[in-house]
Amino acid sequence: MVYIAPSILSADFANLEKDIRDVEQGGADYIHIDVMDGHFVPNITFGPNVVEAIRPHTKLPLDVHLMIEQPDRYIPAFAKAGADIISVHVEACPHLHRTIQHIKELGVKAGVVLNPHTPVSQIEHVLEDVDLVLFMTVNPGFGGQAFIPSVLEKVKEVKTLSEQKGLSDLLIEIDGGVNVETAKSCKEAGANLLVAGSAVYGKNNRAAAIQAIREA
Amino acid sequence: MVYIAPSILSADFANLEKDIRDVEQGGADYIHIDVMDGHFVPNITFGPNVVEAIRPHTKLPLDVHLMIEQPDRYIPAFAKAGADIISVHVEACPHLHRTIQHIKELGVKAGVVLNPHTPVSQIEHVLEDVDLVLFMTVNPGFGGQAFIPSVLEKVKEVKTLSEQKGLSDLLIEIDGGVNVETAKSCKEAGANLLVAGSAVYGKNNRAAAIQAIREA
Amino acid sequence: MVYIAPSILSADFANLEKDIRDVEQGGADYIHIDVMDGHFVPNITFGPNVVEAIRPHTKLPLDVHLMIEQPDRYIPAFAKAGADIISVHVEACPHLHRTIQHIKELGVKAGVVLNPHTPVSQIEHVLEDVDLVLFMTVNPGFGGQAFIPSVLEKVKEVKTLSEQKGLSDLLIEIDGGVNVETAKSCKEAGANLLVAGSAVYGKNNRAAAIQAIREA
Amino acid sequence: MVYIAPSILSADFANLEKDIRDVEQGGADYIHIDVMDGHFVPNITFGPNVVEAIRPHTKLPLDVHLMIEQPDRYIPAFAKAGADIISVHVEACPHLHRTIQHIKELGVKAGVVLNPHTPVSQIEHVLEDVDLVLFMTVNPGFGGQAFIPSVLEKVKEVKTLSEQKGLSDLLIEIDGGVNVETAKSCKEAGANLLVAGSAVYGKNNRAAAIQAIREA
Amino acid sequence: MVYIAPSILSADFANLEKDIRDVEQGGADYIHIDVMDGHFVPNITFGPNVVEAIRPHTKLPLDVHLMIEQPDRYIPAFAKAGADIISVHVEACPHLHRTIQHIKELGVKAGVVLNPHTPVSQIEHVLEDVDLVLFMTVNPGFGGQAFIPSVLEKVKEVKTLSEQKGLSDLLIEIDGGVNVETAKSCKEAGANLLVAGSAVYGKNNRAAAIQAIREA
Amino acid sequence: MVYIAPSILSADFANLEKDIRDVEQGGADYIHIDVMDGHFVPNITFGPNVVEAIRPHTKLPLDVHLMIEQPDRYIPAFAKAGADIISVHVEACPHLHRTIQHIKELGVKAGVVLNPHTPVSQIEHVLEDVDLVLFMTVNPGFGGQAFIPSVLEKVKEVKTLSEQKGLSDLLIEIDGGVNVETAKSCKEAGANLLVAGSAVYGKNNRAAAIQAIREA
Repeated sequence: MVYIAPSILSADFANLEKDIRDVEQGGADYIHIDVMDGHFVPNITFGPNVVEAIRPHTKLPLDVHLMIEQPDRYIPAFAKAGADIISVHVEACPHLHRTIQHIKELGVKAGVVLNPHTPVSQIEHVLEDVDLVLFMTVNPGFGGQAFIPSVLEKVKEVKTLSEQKGLSDLLIEIDGGVNVETAKSCKEAGANLLVAGSAVYGKNNRAAAIQAIREA
Repeated sequence: MVYIAPSILSADFANLEKDIRDVEQGGADYIHIDVMDGHFVPNITFGPNVVEAIRPHTKLPLDVHLMIEQPDRYIPAFAKAGADIISVHVEACPHLHRTIQHIKELGVKAGVVLNPHTPVSQIEHVLEDVDLVLFMTVNPGFGGQAFIPSVLEKVKEVKTLSEQKGLSDLLIEIDGGVNVETAKSCKEAGANLLVAGSAVYGKNNRAAAIQAIREA
Repeated sequence: MVYIAPSILSADFANLEKDIRDVEQGGADYIHIDVMDGHFVPNITFGPNVVEAIRPHTKLPLDVHLMIEQPDRYIPAFAKAGADIISVHVEACPHLHRTIQHIKELGVKAGVVLNPHTPVSQIEHVLEDVDLVLFMTVNPGFGGQAFIPSVLEKVKEVKTLSEQKGLSDLLIEIDGGVNVETAKSCKEAGANLLVAGSAVYGKNNRAAAIQAIREA
Repeated sequence: MVYIAPSILSADFANLEKDIRDVEQGGADYIHIDVMDGHFVPNITFGPNVVEAIRPHTKLPLDVHLMIEQPDRYIPAFAKAGADIISVHVEACPHLHRTIQHIKELGVKAGVVLNPHTPVSQIEHVLEDVDLVLFMTVNPGFGGQAFIPSVLEKVKEVKTLSEQKGLSDLLIEIDGGVNVETAKSCKEAGANLLVAGSAVYGKNNRAAAIQAIREA
Repeated sequence: MVYIAPSILSADFANLEKDIRDVEQGGADYIHIDVMDGHFVPNITFGPNVVEAIRPHTKLPLDVHLMIEQPDRYIPAFAKAGADIISVHVEACPHLHRTIQHIKELGVKAGVVLNPHTPVSQIEHVLEDVDLVLFMTVNPGFGGQAFIPSVLEKVKEVKTLSEQKGLSDLLIEIDGGVNVETAKSCKEAGANLLVAGSAVYGKNNRAAAIQAIREA
Repeated sequence: MVYIAPSILSADFANLEKDIRDVEQGGADYIHIDVMDGHFVPNITFGPNVVEAIRPHTKLPLDVHLMIEQPDRYIPAFAKAGADIISVHVEACPHLHRTIQHIKELGVKAGVVLNPHTPVSQIEHVLEDVDLVLFMTVNPGFGGQAFIPSVLEKVKEVKTLSEQKGLSDLLIEIDGGVNVETAKSCKEAGANLLVAGSAVYGKNNRAAAIQAIREA
């Protein structure tokens, strides 16, 4: 079983309510929300105001991925806006253990994200503290990139570690270039949550698109 | 005559298309767009993706106010997304003259913004280069603030300078706490473009709200 | 009449309680507290913990001078630790008006500080918002510097402005190289609060030292 | 055998001389000194002036823990102020090997510090260059945190490495939440130097407190 | 009388010795050296090593223009490398007075530089401390820009101030787009030192080019 | 077989053309170019202008080592200036995988550099993406340092990994303190490209110096 999280980055920002309802009715399990500040990554997307705006229109958990510097400054705002999961980049967190605690103290699930080159050793000491590990299979914030298959070796590594440590509830998420072609290898590597952008929002029939990825 | 620019920061982010059509039909002259990066100001709002999303839904000029550090990095993206005016903060621009040139080279009108404490002397050498001067009458990015009337002295100063220099087309814009009560003194000070947030979007009848501010 | 504020930077940090009692009994009016973070200025001194430690041992108002970057982050901690006045550098505050409001919302008096080269025009729009203007007559955080007499022109300028605006309660403070020789010209320029470091703590009889500066 | 280093962060900053003599007479082996700049960690404590002030009042070695950005800028000042050991965070040092050399060139012992999440692999190539490895068992600079027992796995890892490499003099230090309850597991993991804050300074009888931790 | 300072930025970096001898023999009065760090301006040029390399090959004074952040860190290196004048940007110096002192303490003449938009009020309190004021008539570090004539109003303002203050030795320098066409108005505004790049190095006969600018 | 890359940092910057021809005729295989921005390392050297200046004077590949922060900003400029290889520091690249792609998209070979303390695990996930791994055997940008032999353990580790992965074309480069004495152990560890500074340029007979290192 694999969960599907359509990313609102590929939705129509002039009509988010409609697009979010559409994927919820189409069988999505999470709404993935890509926050970029133009400093950690070379793009600015949106902040807590957008999370707050869509919160009333869906019952799905909001899976917020912070691609921002010094994320501790904005964790409370995203928690208050309605985030169910907040994930932070290990590359942006000199006090990663504290940042994870910070998220959890606010009653929100905590995730940690690895850029394509970042080794799993960087997160091994917080693996038991997080609810989710997110693997980037493209470089976040840069346009027009292809799925990087070598990242799946890291997914397998975390899958194995999670089994050794008995972390059966750990969400192992993949973001970047996920589509019907790549989803199969993601699942085989151990991922149980897949972010899909244009592979869902780029299709007229989003329910079919979600189902196709899930069953790939 | 004074122009009115409703700020989308007070609109419903789940249904921007509808809200923007609403103020356009209600008589708005510009759409004001508040971009915050969480570094120059303590809030993250949105980036070029939102400008691009609303561009097809209105014929009004998009008046983009960049509350971001190192704005030169994102000026091309906002120009490409459909901005008609791009304004930058003097406090964020060590190379302000160049940044203004940069905007204009992309075929976009250029504005310069002053925080409440910043003196007019800081912009006197670019006054003839810009299309717009925006005066903050609250501190940008901080919530729950009241209109600061002493800023109007600066507005008068620029109004006088613009007349001396024959800059009859200069837009003199005010943003922060503008409503039916404060609009009159803004106009008297010399402003010809007023940003209104909740004073428009917080009312059921937005046409009436716009008209009330215009005629205050 | 001029107030005297001995700076604890020249006190014995192994025995602050004793040294502070000593200057209080010797007639000091304020305790001046120099906070440096090693980023805004090239020295690290101390933080809120020291303010908190000395608070119980004196009834004098604590006059906290923040030589730090992004002072908003630490204003609440200094207020909680017992500061009566918190002053921030205009060179460190892109949102100076807001920072002053922030201090005052916490029930603390607000000051603004100018480095030796910074013109008075930078603070003219907040003069009515502050309780204190502090003029540096040396460059803060660098050792072994002499009193810069040309700063007194700026003191006179603010003195004149304060009279024009009816700001009779404004504290006009001078910090750097104040001693029996320089105090007279400071007072003549319009200062009513003088920070003294080694000119007080470097003397055996601190009461006499304070009196000598006051009567210079 | 385990050494005890009371942290002056828990001492009375108005009377440091007295508190330091107290722990020295009570059997302390080192004085631990927590320097925070408000940038690397969210608190400002103190700088070289405090080290210099306490230096004449104790014969114990001063164990200075720099929780600051770009520590190279201040290493000479701490060396001159009388530090016997200077430790830097691997998370703050892109040129860690050089920073360690820098400390040692000044005739001071060098230490390296790991935040709770940082893996031992980050320091394996400098292990033979340092005199001390400091493991944070809380996140530095954040208040009110509990001892993180999983850090002890890293302590064991370094203990084993130090034995393999014949580094019999390596100080293996633990800081954060050390008390009578946690000290035993610290020693078993391989630590030979324990930092104690309120567990020493929070007790009336500091000699007894030190002895209790040592014998835990 | 006006001095001419060819900028080595337009020389042949593979053969600097030859090009510098060429302009010295051609009548140049100073060698202008443009240091860019890629942070204060969007280009990296060179550092103290190049100053050191050319120092033995000319008797002309080396006029070093630092377009770098935190210039205090590198002032000693440029002084040691043989700079005769070191100029810093007011936009990069929160402690401008100190930075000027720093340069002068090393036995080097000190200059201050204003970007095109920066008002003269920013330097009025250091005018008597500097040997040189440099006005940028293009934005530094950006390619392909034209001479900005409105900067000459600032030149006149400083010329007048320097006469009022009796600063008869003050060097008033202009950099950016200086050529035979623009030199005349520069001199009329009060400049006595002109930086010429391609207007000298782009000509085969450099002596004639220097003479043409001088006599424009 | 080992390639030799003389570093122009030790050449005569007043006569680069001559010095570069000299080493090319003397048998050098690459020209090594050390770019420092004064931020990532404590020295400023030079930028794309120097690369462009020497490009016409040699047929050897230009091996550009970027010791700069945020290298992505300058990668296009160095590619355009004629770089054949561009190497970036893992310590400066939060998006290392993307930065490597960026270099390669411009038709330039990509390298990754490790400071002396940085473990090989940091680059294991990009090893198959790069053309070159550069090991620093001194700390870059700091003067007067000796060769650090323990780095050779990391060289061996990458040599072994490259063989396991079949990366027979991988350049394994060493920079820092390479001379006739140290070259032998570098080659034994697996290096096939050695940077030599004063060991080549400090000798009168550069051909002999290059040969001596190659045959060490």
